[in-house]
Amino acid sequence: MYSVTVRDHMMIAHSFRGEVFGPAQRLHGATYVVDVEFRRPDIDEDGIVVDIGRAGDTLKHVLGEVNYRNLDEVPAFSGRNTTTEFLARFVFDRMLVAILRGELGPGARAVQSLKVTLHESHVASAAYEGSVAPSA
Amino acid sequence: MYSVTVRDHMMIAHSFRGEVFGPAQRLHGATYVVDVEFRRPDIDEDGIVVDIGRAGDTLKHVLGEVNYRNLDEVPAFSGRNTTTEFLARFVFDRMLVAILRGELGPGARAVQSLKVTLHESHVASAAYEGSVAPSA
Amino acid sequence: MYSVTVRDHMMIAHSFRGEVFGPAQRLHGATYVVDVEFRRPDIDEDGIVVDIGRAGDTLKHVLGEVNYRNLDEVPAFSGRNTTTEFLARFVFDRMLVAILRGELGPGARAVQSLKVTLHESHVASAAYEGSVAPSA
Amino acid sequence: MYSVTVRDHMMIAHSFRGEVFGPAQRLHGATYVVDVEFRRPDIDEDGIVVDIGRAGDTLKHVLGEVNYRNLDEVPAFSGRNTTTEFLARFVFDRMLVAILRGELGPGARAVQSLKVTLHESHVASAAYEGSVAPSA
Amino acid sequence: MYSVTVRDHMMIAHSFRGEVFGPAQRLHGATYVVDVEFRRPDIDEDGIVVDIGRAGDTLKHVLGEVNYRNLDEVPAFSGRNTTTEFLARFVFDRMLVAILRGELGPGARAVQSLKVTLHESHVASAAYEGSVAPSA
Amino acid sequence: MYSVTVRDHMMIAHSFRGEVFGPAQRLHGATYVVDVEFRRPDIDEDGIVVDIGRAGDTLKHVLGEVNYRNLDEVPAFSGRNTTTEFLARFVFDRMLVAILRGELGPGARAVQSLKVTLHESHVASAAYEGSVAPSA
Repeated sequence: MYSVTVRDHMMIAHSFRGEVFGPAQRLHGATYVVDVEFRRPDIDEDGIVVDIGRAGDTLKHVLGEVNYRNLDEVPAFSGRNTTTEFLARFVFDRMLVAILRGELGPGARAVQSLKVTLHESHVASAAYEGSVAPSA
Repeated sequence: MYSVTVRDHMMIAHSFRGEVFGPAQRLHGATYVVDVEFRRPDIDEDGIVVDIGRAGDTLKHVLGEVNYRNLDEVPAFSGRNTTTEFLARFVFDRMLVAILRGELGPGARAVQSLKVTLHESHVASAAYEGSVAPSA
Repeated sequence: MYSVTVRDHMMIAHSFRGEVFGPAQRLHGATYVVDVEFRRPDIDEDGIVVDIGRAGDTLKHVLGEVNYRNLDEVPAFSGRNTTTEFLARFVFDRMLVAILRGELGPGARAVQSLKVTLHESHVASAAYEGSVAPSA
Repeated sequence: MYSVTVRDHMMIAHSFRGEVFGPAQRLHGATYVVDVEFRRPDIDEDGIVVDIGRAGDTLKHVLGEVNYRNLDEVPAFSGRNTTTEFLARFVFDRMLVAILRGELGPGARAVQSLKVTLHESHVASAAYEGSVAPSA
Repeated sequence: MYSVTVRDHMMIAHSFRGEVFGPAQRLHGATYVVDVEFRRPDIDEDGIVVDIGRAGDTLKHVLGEVNYRNLDEVPAFSGRNTTTEFLARFVFDRMLVAILRGELGPGARAVQSLKVTLHESHVASAAYEGSVAPSA
Repeated sequence: MYSVTVRDHMMIAHSFRGEVFGPAQRLHGATYVVDVEFRRPDIDEDGIVVDIGRAGDTLKHVLGEVNYRNLDEVPAFSGRNTTTEFLARFVFDRMLVAILRGELGPGARAVQSLKVTLHESHVASAAYEGSVAPSA
């Protein structure tokens, strides 16, 4: 299995509901350094998994939807805790749609799975990984 | 699949038996920067894989059992080489017990697998990963 | 010159006033990974620059004053942009007071200068460094 | 599953053919920081996955075949784009042969799979992973 | 003293003349992860050392002059070894001119010194630092 | 001012005397990732600060003197706490002698100062810096 990983970051504010979060129930924020890994069994005739330039541009576009925002006020996240895990899934879903729509080029449709990792500090991270085409 | 990873470290002394270890047969030591990854297919109603505060506290407690010690004198390790691989398994086993005992909270019992990685330098690491509930 | 550096982090929300900040004028947030470096020309009789345990505890205490907060609502920062540079100075000032009050132990008063670095992402950081006892 | 990872690096020149590469069609170069991960279900009687000294020596030897070279002039790569993905596979294939030939010691034949990751910058990497003994 | 640091990277080919370089006399290449640190004694009324957006854009523009190139064919470097040290100075000189020309904004003229660090691998780097206005 | 930095590591056991060390009074150990920075105002005719190959070899030789050892049993350290600060100075002194003896080549005698940093974990480090030729 081959893979390619690209990195970017976003800086957001949010608060959590639930005693488990302790002081993180207050409005605070985070820098998320985001890695997106694209996996496929073979490389294409150019020798690549995915056009890394388009992959990076798409990731920047996806993060731009929430970057420099208070996630408590983003309608799409209403009633949800925007935890690192939840945001890893959010980025995964957006990248998946971009691949299916051909925004990373026709070759990217051969990508079988994605893993999105969000590093929230030097000591903690969360990730979501899943298939691009689950019903083979 | 979702995952959350927390990091801490420990500093120990030990020696190895076996020619394969060369100069590491002498009493020496290591800093291990330890990552524990918790994996489960879904997040809970709070939006998390595991209570990251409890996860970090549990990891610190587990590492405290051997931190600042000469592992050659720890009875539980008698007759064993406390290699990075061996210690990754040791931390895995201790974290597994903590999950099963509910020390990370009842929700943590939904964790399906763990991966424990010990970084012994900027150029070497070892890991152990396994199921939390192998007999499904 | 000897030095010792300890690391911790904080997660905050804030917004900036001024066109230069572009989208960062909106309420957003950041994780700051904070390094504090203590410098002195000689080590003490124990062989240390500063009690690293106390140094870490003091840093955690200082960061706790603003950690998990919306800095726009912290009275002490009223009317100020809480930029990375500004916060580096804030941490410097608090650490300086702690040293002068003897909270890091009497030996820490031999520390001549401090450097506080805040890493806001994998591609940007800011720092403030200065003397502990400028008027020798 | 246990694993051990060793790291080294190489510095090469190359150019790519294909519009997808944009300016990378020109002769340029890269530092690749290379991680090789060895995986097996159990550790041996010494408590190790693989002799880490031999693993590192073998990796250095493999990288030495292309290190400080213009890959456009290496006959074995003729007509191929030496992308990061391609080179991850190249290092994988060479490490696989070394294991099968016993160059990492007889115990290394128990290694079940390898993952080779090439970091080309602080924001991009590629990897290839596969079985050592696919036809069990 | 305050400082702000921004990071980007470039990927180049080159060769060196001189026995001291051993195999690096052959045409090879490197990824340089480049940090530029801007220093000044005070922050401006916005609370910043420099407009970090403009600083990053300027750095990308400077690196673009040599990125994805064979430095052996760049006329400006004719007859010179484009070592990591030499390239650190090259980036320093270009950033200095950009500051003096006001490309980072009028406030950036208060910057007193710069440090440019090029990381060529996980084990080696070089830097050049100097004054922006040496003749005070 | 130009500089070049090389990195290597060592793994040692030791214990400390003094209440300030708490549990580190017990025999334990550490991995030290060691950076040595060489500084001089100009580069030589080859375009370098120092022969990076010789610098790395010398560093490995210096670390080899204590690597894989119990420092409590090294006669040269008798009666001293081998703290990270102390060991930074030890490496500094050894590198200084190597430069003065010409082991890094005649050009290395133009090096004006050195900085030695020992990273003992992902959250702590210590350093010693000083002149090569203090009495100019």
